[in-house]
Amino acid sequence: MSKPMTKGSVLIAGLGPGHEALVTEEVRTALTQATDVVGYIPYVKRVAPRDGLTLHASDNRVEVDRATHALQMAAEGKQVVVVSSGDPGVFAMASAVFEALEAGPSSWLDLDIRVLPGITAMLAAAAAIGAPLGHDFAAINLSDNLKPWELIERRLQLVGEAGLAMAFYNPRSKSRPHQFARALEVLRDACGGDTLITFARDVTKPGQEILTVPLRDATPEMADMRTVVIVGNRDTRRVGNYVYTPRFAPGHQPG
Amino acid sequence: MSKPMTKGSVLIAGLGPGHEALVTEEVRTALTQATDVVGYIPYVKRVAPRDGLTLHASDNRVEVDRATHALQMAAEGKQVVVVSSGDPGVFAMASAVFEALEAGPSSWLDLDIRVLPGITAMLAAAAAIGAPLGHDFAAINLSDNLKPWELIERRLQLVGEAGLAMAFYNPRSKSRPHQFARALEVLRDACGGDTLITFARDVTKPGQEILTVPLRDATPEMADMRTVVIVGNRDTRRVGNYVYTPRFAPGHQPG
Repeated sequence: MSKPMTKGSVLIAGLGPGHEALVTEEVRTALTQATDVVGYIPYVKRVAPRDGLTLHASDNRVEVDRATHALQMAAEGKQVVVVSSGDPGVFAMASAVFEALEAGPSSWLDLDIRVLPGITAMLAAAAAIGAPLGHDFAAINLSDNLKPWELIERRLQLVGEAGLAMAFYNPRSKSRPHQFARALEVLRDACGGDTLITFARDVTKPGQEILTVPLRDATPEMADMRTVVIVGNRDTRRVGNYVYTPRFAPGHQPG
Repeated sequence: MSKPMTKGSVLIAGLGPGHEALVTEEVRTALTQATDVVGYIPYVKRVAPRDGLTLHASDNRVEVDRATHALQMAAEGKQVVVVSSGDPGVFAMASAVFEALEAGPSSWLDLDIRVLPGITAMLAAAAAIGAPLGHDFAAINLSDNLKPWELIERRLQLVGEAGLAMAFYNPRSKSRPHQFARALEVLRDACGGDTLITFARDVTKPGQEILTVPLRDATPEMADMRTVVIVGNRDTRRVGNYVYTPRFAPGHQPG
């Protein structure tokens, strides 16, 4: 096979939380120039078919296989876009592509590989609520598919003790219904029962649902895998229909 | 004065990190419909003047005054856009608007107030580097203008102990040069000297500079107020020119 004329590329593109007006122009342009789009079925569905573009949709839980496939096609000179929801760098496809790159032939290091950021779910959810992440915060994936549950509990305790707000991705699945109940217990202990927790489901999509309650009233059923959960810090409060966290620590008005 | 015909609005819009291709369509549309744009001088400069649009640029450190002005104009029936860099909900104008709303007359609660998310600096920086925030992480503002320095140190210790990656906003200013040196000491103790730290300056802008070193080799001069700093976790690594954090904890390959 002769050497490809054009250098292959893998652009890992964030489609944002769902609403088309939240896709950046950088990502739109990448999609118009792609020869191949790779991704999880519902995200590939968001890309309009056209001549010269091949869509490769795959099921979830095959992130590294999908990433390897993308790199293989780029090595053949193709212009590949890997689509992620939200931001590719936040619990999405970017790390999987670099894992596959590390495991692959060193020639792949010469490919044009770039991450195109997007609006991640927690920031779309925060915007829909008000400004619950307006002070220091942490983003934590509650799925124990990627780390032991004991480590997750320890992180909730330490981050709660540090007084940070928190956003949770993948809070609850059918295969581990008891774990999110336990997470709520740990959070009540670490943050206090008065701390506000918000459940944001299908953010920016039709049927968006938002519910805010004090931690003491939160129940596991308020979340599912389509929910982003945001726990405020002890100063997070309501004003009208909004929930926000002041920029400053108590007693420390900005100078 | 007669009641205004149209309901006033305050849209708090994220302009992203700097590059125009990273502004969402939602924000572009809001700017075309605004009667008044309010913000810090360099951000207002990014908005094209046009007939029917009044630009109100102000200096920094007057966030609540600016927010109050925006709400007052909306109460007069104007369509106000408050521009922020990055995402308005991450160490930017959204919380300041809700602080002003809470302090203002209750009639302001009837205004149309919405946050329009944007690409925040840490996620643009992460994308430019690879995927250093691909596992659990925290976003921390290092300015002691908003909280006591002791609290910042405590947060660095606890979050480091929890094993999260970290992104720092406002890492260093001329008025407090010694503090970032102390932060690096705390981080070396909490995370180990091998942990990678990246300094990303003027991300997505002309003259973007990226530098990654192990924590043991980091010096305070590597950061200024235009730098976002990202510290990885103990698994954060290089592959080729990229820096990424695996999705899974060590010994816990995705199932």
